[in-house]
This record gives sequence, C-alpha cells and structure tokens, in this order.
Amino acid sequence: MPSPTATLLISCPDQPGLVAKMASFIYANGGNIIHADQHTDFSAGLFLMRLEWQLEGFNLPKDVIAPAFRAIAQPLNAKWELHFSDDIPRLAIWVSKQDHCLFDLIWRQRAGEFAADISLILSNHPNLEHTAHQFGIDYHHIPITADTKAQQEAIQIKLLHDYRIDLVVLAKYMQMLSADFIAQFPHIINIHHSFLPAFAGANPYQRAFERGVKIIGATAHYVTQDLDEGPIIEQDVVRVSHRDQVNDLIRKGKDLERVVLARAVRHHLQNRVLVYGNRTVVFA
Amino acid sequence: MPSPTATLLISCPDQPGLVAKMASFIYANGGNIIHADQHTDFSAGLFLMRLEWQLEGFNLPKDVIAPAFRAIAQPLNAKWELHFSDDIPRLAIWVSKQDHCLFDLIWRQRAGEFAADISLILSNHPNLEHTAHQFGIDYHHIPITADTKAQQEAIQIKLLHDYRIDLVVLAKYMQMLSADFIAQFPHIINIHHSFLPAFAGANPYQRAFERGVKIIGATAHYVTQDLDEGPIIEQDVVRVSHRDQVNDLIRKGKDLERVVLARAVRHHLQNRVLVYGNRTVVFA
Amino acid sequence: MPSPTATLLISCPDQPGLVAKMASFIYANGGNIIHADQHTDFSAGLFLMRLEWQLEGFNLPKDVIAPAFRAIAQPLNAKWELHFSDDIPRLAIWVSKQDHCLFDLIWRQRAGEFAADISLILSNHPNLEHTAHQFGIDYHHIPITADTKAQQEAIQIKLLHDYRIDLVVLAKYMQMLSADFIAQFPHIINIHHSFLPAFAGANPYQRAFERGVKIIGATAHYVTQDLDEGPIIEQDVVRVSHRDQVNDLIRKGKDLERVVLARAVRHHLQNRVLVYGNRTVVFA
Amino acid sequence: MPSPTATLLISCPDQPGLVAKMASFIYANGGNIIHADQHTDFSAGLFLMRLEWQLEGFNLPKDVIAPAFRAIAQPLNAKWELHFSDDIPRLAIWVSKQDHCLFDLIWRQRAGEFAADISLILSNHPNLEHTAHQFGIDYHHIPITADTKAQQEAIQIKLLHDYRIDLVVLAKYMQMLSADFIAQFPHIINIHHSFLPAFAGANPYQRAFERGVKIIGATAHYVTQDLDEGPIIEQDVVRVSHRDQVNDLIRKGKDLERVVLARAVRHHLQNRVLVYGNRTVVFA
Repeated sequence: MPSPTATLLISCPDQPGLVAKMASFIYANGGNIIHADQHTDFSAGLFLMRLEWQLEGFNLPKDVIAPAFRAIAQPLNAKWELHFSDDIPRLAIWVSKQDHCLFDLIWRQRAGEFAADISLILSNHPNLEHTAHQFGIDYHHIPITADTKAQQEAIQIKLLHDYRIDLVVLAKYMQMLSADFIAQFPHIINIHHSFLPAFAGANPYQRAFERGVKIIGATAHYVTQDLDEGPIIEQDVVRVSHRDQVNDLIRKGKDLERVVLARAVRHHLQNRVLVYGNRTVVFA
Repeated sequence: MPSPTATLLISCPDQPGLVAKMASFIYANGGNIIHADQHTDFSAGLFLMRLEWQLEGFNLPKDVIAPAFRAIAQPLNAKWELHFSDDIPRLAIWVSKQDHCLFDLIWRQRAGEFAADISLILSNHPNLEHTAHQFGIDYHHIPITADTKAQQEAIQIKLLHDYRIDLVVLAKYMQMLSADFIAQFPHIINIHHSFLPAFAGANPYQRAFERGVKIIGATAHYVTQDLDEGPIIEQDVVRVSHRDQVNDLIRKGKDLERVVLARAVRHHLQNRVLVYGNRTVVFA
Repeated sequence: MPSPTATLLISCPDQPGLVAKMASFIYANGGNIIHADQHTDFSAGLFLMRLEWQLEGFNLPKDVIAPAFRAIAQPLNAKWELHFSDDIPRLAIWVSKQDHCLFDLIWRQRAGEFAADISLILSNHPNLEHTAHQFGIDYHHIPITADTKAQQEAIQIKLLHDYRIDLVVLAKYMQMLSADFIAQFPHIINIHHSFLPAFAGANPYQRAFERGVKIIGATAHYVTQDLDEGPIIEQDVVRVSHRDQVNDLIRKGKDLERVVLARAVRHHLQNRVLVYGNRTVVFA
Repeated sequence: MPSPTATLLISCPDQPGLVAKMASFIYANGGNIIHADQHTDFSAGLFLMRLEWQLEGFNLPKDVIAPAFRAIAQPLNAKWELHFSDDIPRLAIWVSKQDHCLFDLIWRQRAGEFAADISLILSNHPNLEHTAHQFGIDYHHIPITADTKAQQEAIQIKLLHDYRIDLVVLAKYMQMLSADFIAQFPHIINIHHSFLPAFAGANPYQRAFERGVKIIGATAHYVTQDLDEGPIIEQDVVRVSHRDQVNDLIRKGKDLERVVLARAVRHHLQNRVLVYGNRTVVFA
C-alpha cells in the first residue's frame, strides 16, 4: 500500500522560474516529489505542470495546502486543481443497451486498475439492470423521449447530486445531453466509436465501411456542448480489410472502445489530464 | 529470377461456380496458379478475384489469352484486366517542393521493391530538377497559375502520352488536377497527409494540431474528380502527444507518407488492387 | 441467421490444377462458395486451401461429403478437415487465479463473437468458482503438486472426455502440461504473456522490465511438448516507457493477452487456421 | 531560428528537494526553462532529470556553467552531462553493403531532422563509395578479416580521432566490434534487425520466418561488449502473415530499421537519452 499523495495540476502564462517556484513550494514544506512533469505551449504562451508528492512527512495539513498554494498561484494568474489520492472519486456510468464498456470498467475497477467507487449505473433502457445488480451497483432506468428530455435530465442531475458523483462516464450512452445539462454538470467523459474528427455523429461504423477506410478508431473525449467536438483524451485504431463487413467493424471497434475509454478514465482519475482551449495535455 | 506470370483481376455479379470456372480456365490450358484469392461482397452481390499463374508451360500464347478469356467473361458480365509481369509499367512521379516521397520511391525502385520504370518527374516548381538528374531521370518543370492551368494541363497530358506513362504518382504534388485532366488520364495515385476522411483539403497537420488529436495518419488513394474522396488503397497512423508541435506532426507525417504511398504503389503495380464503387479490394 | 456452411481445410504437395479440382468438387455438387483462400509455400512445396460453401442447395448430404471428398484427397496425399458451422464446438477454459481472459472469453461467447459452448471451467485453484457459477458454468478445482500431477492429469483427461470437449483454452493456466497429456489431448490453445520467442518461460514481464524493452507483447499458440515453442496463431504488442514499472507491464499486458487469445480462439473456431511444420496459415 | 539552449542530463540517488534544487540553479542565474522532465526509479532509488533552458539571458557564460553546476552535483553524487545546442556533433556512419539506413540518415540530416555533421562514412566493403561522394562525404573502405581485425580497428580508431567523431552509427554494419574497440570508443548506436531479445545474433529474419512469428521488429541500442545486449533506445514492429516469405520480411524490416534507427539517433543527438544499468530513460 503506497503512502497517500497530493497532486497539483497547474496552468498559467509562461514566465521564467515557474518550475523552481512550484518545486520549492513542495520542498520548503518537507514534501518528496514522486512525479514532476512540465510542458510549455510556446504558441499559446502557456506553462502547464503536474506535481505529485507524498503526504507523509509533508509539513502542511491537507486542509492548509490549498490556501498556502493560492498565495503562490494568484500572482501568476494560474488555474490549478489539488487532489488527494485517498479521496476516492465517485463514478456514474451511463449506458444504453451495449454492455462491453460497462463490463470492462467494472472489471478494471475490481482489479484495482483505478481507484474509484462505481456508485451508480444509469440507462435510458432497462436491459442492463441485471448486470448492475450482479455486481451490487444501483441501477436507474430513465427513458428519454423528445418530450420528456428536459424533465428527465432534471431527474438525472438530482441523482448525480444525491450520489455525490464526481465523474460521469458515458460508456456507449446513445443519447445526446442538452447544453443545459452539461453546463450544470461538466465532468463527463464520452467514448465515440470513430477516429474523430472522422465520422463524428451517428453510425460511424456504417459510414467508415461505405467510405472504404483501411483503419478504424475510437476516441475518448470530454463532453462539451458541441457534439463530438470536446477535448480528446485518448484515441486508438485497428486495421480492417475488404473482408470486414459492418458487423466486423462493430466487433473490432468494441475492443478499441473499451480500451480507449478505460485509458482515458484512468488518466483522468489519476489527475494526469489538463485541458486548455480544445486540447489536452496528458502527463502519462 | 522467377518465371514471368500472368495476372487476372476479375469482378462480376456473384453466382455459383465462379471459382471453379476461373481456375479451370487456367488449368485446362496447362497453367500453374501461384496465387488465387477471392472475395465476395454479399451486400453488393459482387464476386471479385485475383489469379496469378506462371506463363512457363501455359499453352496459350500471350496475345491469345485475352480473347480466350473474353469468351468466358462476357456471359458473366465481368469486368477484368489482364497483366503480364514482364511488361514493365512506366511511371511519372509528380512533385512540388518536398522530396521525401520522391527519394523514397526512387530508392525502392532501385532496390527492386517494385518493377517499374520511373520515366518522368514532373513538377510545378524547379527545385527538384537536380535530384532528378542525379538519378538520370527526365524532369519537366511546368508552373501552374489559375490563368495557365488549362493550357499547362494540355502540356502535361501530352507528356504522359509522349513518355507512354501507365501510372501517375502524385508524391506530394500540391496542385489540384482538373476534372477534365482526370477524365483524360484516370490512372493516378495520390498521397494525402491525413487520415481520410479526417482533415480532407488543405493544411491537415495544422488542423490536426488545432483539433488536438492523439494520432495522425496518411492515406494513399486513387484520384477522382472529388478532392480527397477517391477509393482508399492504404492508410497508416502514428501516435503524437502534447509535446508535438505542428512541425513535429509534419516530420512524423513524412515517415507515414512515404511508407503508405510506397505500399499503395507496390500493390497497384503488382495488380493486387480492385476498385468497385468507392472501395478497394487489396489482395495482399 | 445465415445458412449453415461447410468448411474444408486442405494441405497437400503442390501441383497444377489444385484450385480447379477443389472448386469443381463444390460446384459440381451444386454448392455456392462464400470464401475461397489459397496459399502456396513454395519453399515447402506445399499447397494449402480453405473453402467454405453454403450447405443449402448442396446436393450431397452432410454424411456423404467426407467420403466423397476422400476420393479426391487420397491421390493428392492431402491432409484435410471438414467442419460444419452448425456443429457447435465444446470448450473447456482452464485458469489459475487471474480472471481477465476468462471474463473476456465468456463475454465474447455471450456477445456472439464466436459460436461455441463453454462447457467447463477447470482450475488448479478454487478462486474463480464463484465467477463460473455466476455464469452457470461447471467448475472443477483440480490442485496439482509435483507428486499428484500424473493422477490429476488422468482426472483432467477423463473430464475432457465426459464433457466431450473439442478444444482446451489455457486462459492464464500457470501449470505445465505433461507430454503424455498433450499426446492424449492435442487440441489446446495457450496465451503466453510475452512476444515469443522473447521471454519464453517464467516471469516474462519481470524479465522484459529488466531488459528495458520499449514494447511488450502477447502470443497465442497451439500447445506442443516443447514449452512455448508451439505454432503461433496470433501476436500483438503495446508500447511501454521508462515510466512503466513491472506492475504497469502486467496491467498493459492483460489487455493484450485477452485480445490476442480471443482472436486466436475465434480464428480456430471458424476453422481458419492450418498448421504445417511449426507454422500456421491463418486464412483471416 | 530558435535561440541556442543548454541541456543538463542528471542522475543521482533520490532524495527530497532535487527538482527544486536543479530548477533553482537555472532560475537563480536568469535562465528560462523550456523543457523539464523528471523520472524516479523507486526500485533503483534513482532520480533522473533532463533540463533544457535558453542561453539567451542566462547570466553564466557557457564555460562557467559546468564548474558552477559541479558544486551542486558533487554533494549529490550525481552523474551529469552538459550539452549546448550550438555545438554541432560529428557523426560517423558505418555501413556494409546495404544502403537504406545510410540514405535515410543522410536525407534526414539534410532535411534538418537532427543537427549533426555527417563527417565520415566507413565500410568494410567498397560498394557505397559512390553514394558517399554523391553527397560530398568522405568514404573510407576498411576491409576486415579475422587476421587483420586488430590492426584495422586501430586504423578505425585513428579515423574517429582524426575526424573528431562524437558518435558512431552502425547503419547495418555487419561486423562485430572487439571489446577493446568499444572500450576505446564507447559512443556507438547500432540497429539490430529483430525485436530484441528475440533473434539476437545472425540471420534474424530467416529465424523469424522459421519460427512463424506474426510480427517482426527492429531495435536500436547502444553497443556494449555483449552482442545485442546493450541498452535499448527504441523499438518498433510490423505485422507479417503467412504470405510473407523471408524476402518480404527483409523488405518490410528495412522500413522498420531506418525509422527506428533514425528515432534513436535523433533522441541521442537531442540529449534525451539517459542510460542506467542496462536501461534507458528517453525524455521524448
């Protein structure tokens, strides 16, 4: 069992001395850095950094770290997040009828691949209730029609609050979320079954087949109000041939979807992802 | 030195007995098949086949094979091509200023990776004339402006005829060909520096960078009148990270471009590619 | 629901006319070939072919096909197998303590990715009994020690017969099988957690880490009496970096192991794999 | 033209405060860090870091930086290297008869993919002299036999000194270097045409074919006295099938060899590679 750690994710306008300033803050308070990674986007004039250090031996109590760092961050105009590895985030997994990403995330969580509590499974279909209960997870069936969307989203938002959810993972949830929903709960990762920006929107495998591509892909991204346009966290691809029909693309794609989504969720939960503009830095 | 071979590429409406019929034609005339590959696209109801056999010991003289096969093909409504491995195709490579694909194709041709004569290098810029002459290949500099395009294309077409060119390879030729040109000379392979259909059109690396993709690609395709919409022959990809600026994408992309283009040209020259609709079958 | 098919897998000394002979056998009996693929290994002088055709409309009853084909195969000195897609093979999955490949194979079978009955799960540990029962599959716990190996293998062999097992899949079964066992039941696929022939034997991830490789792999192969030396069916790899410790290699490797094993099992069950010497032809 | 930079590569026993100490050294002297990357190997108790900063505005003159940093490094028991981006390293490329890696490195150097002077081409065969002269590079033909090896290596060492060579790149040089040679000139990168540790030694493609692998690879590594056992810098792989004969493996392998070697040389020349034990950290 490794000792708990704290992680800072920082972005601010670039200037000399930032690495020294950040690292000195940790060192001056007795911390031992176990991971320091830094990136400068020169065209954007932006400095980005991830710092992870052991809490054991650190002189500042957990609740004093944020105020203490704020004194450093404010003059730098920095955006920053502070996370503790012993605060276990709470996940809601949203599905429709397909179960492969759901099964995969549950299996990985139980195998210890990421530290999170899968608190809630939510679906617009009843099909996967049995699976949820098989693993002892609450399941809420919230059907959506054009007419009921607004009121059902209100119920969804309430559930996210009731379950104190930190992150929603759309694991092949085949409904669009309204802009209003996303504004209220912006912490959402989606898996799209194409190599974005190719085949954004509906039926990507059918369209990939019709276009005759030789490689298909999957993309995990944060959800924003522009469909399939959010910041990309992870992508991967697999080769197909003329022997592969649409069904084969779907089958091969499932293997991509689950591994790409799992990598993105893991990176996010380990606080390795920084978003700026429509891009991500993944300090992997 | 392997014995010369003949290759048939056939597509026709599917019906029982086609494999037997094709193979029996070869066998009945004393031929030894060294490669038989077949594919049926059930949704299109189409049968596609590639047959390669040794000419040594084959009873029909080369000039009788086509008429003899026509008698079989016609009742089947088949489209077909017949090629002989000792007819060396003549290539024209078209470039602008970048030399990586040109160098690569020349090196591969000299290394024996494909059997072809690189008869002509054509460019809208003078830059690569020295390179062409270094390898003893004729170079024609044909600048293009909006005003001169029609008359310059006439000169290009004349050159293709004068040099008896079988295939044009656009090896980073940064000019669009007119529909009229393509109608007159339809045997053209292009390399596009993106993973089509993503980033069709201009500046794909810049746009890939802006979109924040985690993987970039390259696509070799036959040229049709719709820009970047022709049948795809080959694609490949490489992973990029937040550390890669546009220049790094361009650098990494060059490695993709040359290998993807080379594979496509090789498949084509070995008569392994069958086009139907906007798709290809590559009997690799 | 597609119509049932028959599949012939044939290998014999090469000679002219084999494709015609095989295809004509199908056609003469009214069959419609849906997949014909052929390969000649010239250095071995060996012809190999896979033929799949629809049973609907085929003139020969199922039990007459083998005798009828034998008359063709015998003079050619051919080795061959005949399979029918409506004969569902029976699988035994053998595991130790790790569950990722087991879960994956069960999920794929239920998702319809391959047609097989998972009849039996066998293990040298009790750990996964609950998982087996969760999916309604019989579980037999057969612990092995150096002293009991021979008598326990006799029990295993009896189980394979009692359950009429066609294929054993070693899904991270961490025990070696005796030569005697393999002689009695030779239809076994294993997943080895390295890119064979690198890191054959024990602790491949530890050794890969110590060697400082930049890519790790997994290999699915038929089991022969030489450990990790059997014919390879499928391999795949994933990139690692200096940031990956042994635990990360194990985690990344699990994703490889399950997908590589699943592809191999699927290819085998669809009768796409032909073994000759220590090599496989996979007509994928 | 970017401003010149200095790069420090440091490794030392891990202890708290190292990132702060290193970064503060740069900042205190007015430097602007453009790349800071750090790795801790906890099992080895080792801290490794790469720091790159702009020389423009840095208060210490170039010749004072090393002595100034020594005062920091010595108490930490650190091993370290200091490089300046405007000191252009001098390369010797060693070849036998194959030209693909040679051509590729020359092309990349001319394309600006790495900053180096290719000062010398050395070969145990006369074949590539014309190529060398085509690009205006000196060529020395030094044939090797068992009897002459010692005296020829003395000549080689003298050439490396005469040409003030910083790095030898074995670009398919098919001779082994003696332990004595390596002791005298240890800065050597080799490309091995297999996925090490698989198929170390002679004829890897032939042996890969015989083993029936489904993927082949190439490995770039530093040369040590144990053949093919040196620290790996970069590896990559490509898929092969039963259709690929040994010649096809060789052809496909060439594409791997040149790209893997080029990446390794580039990483080395950009001072991104740190060796410890038999491993490398590549701060890419």
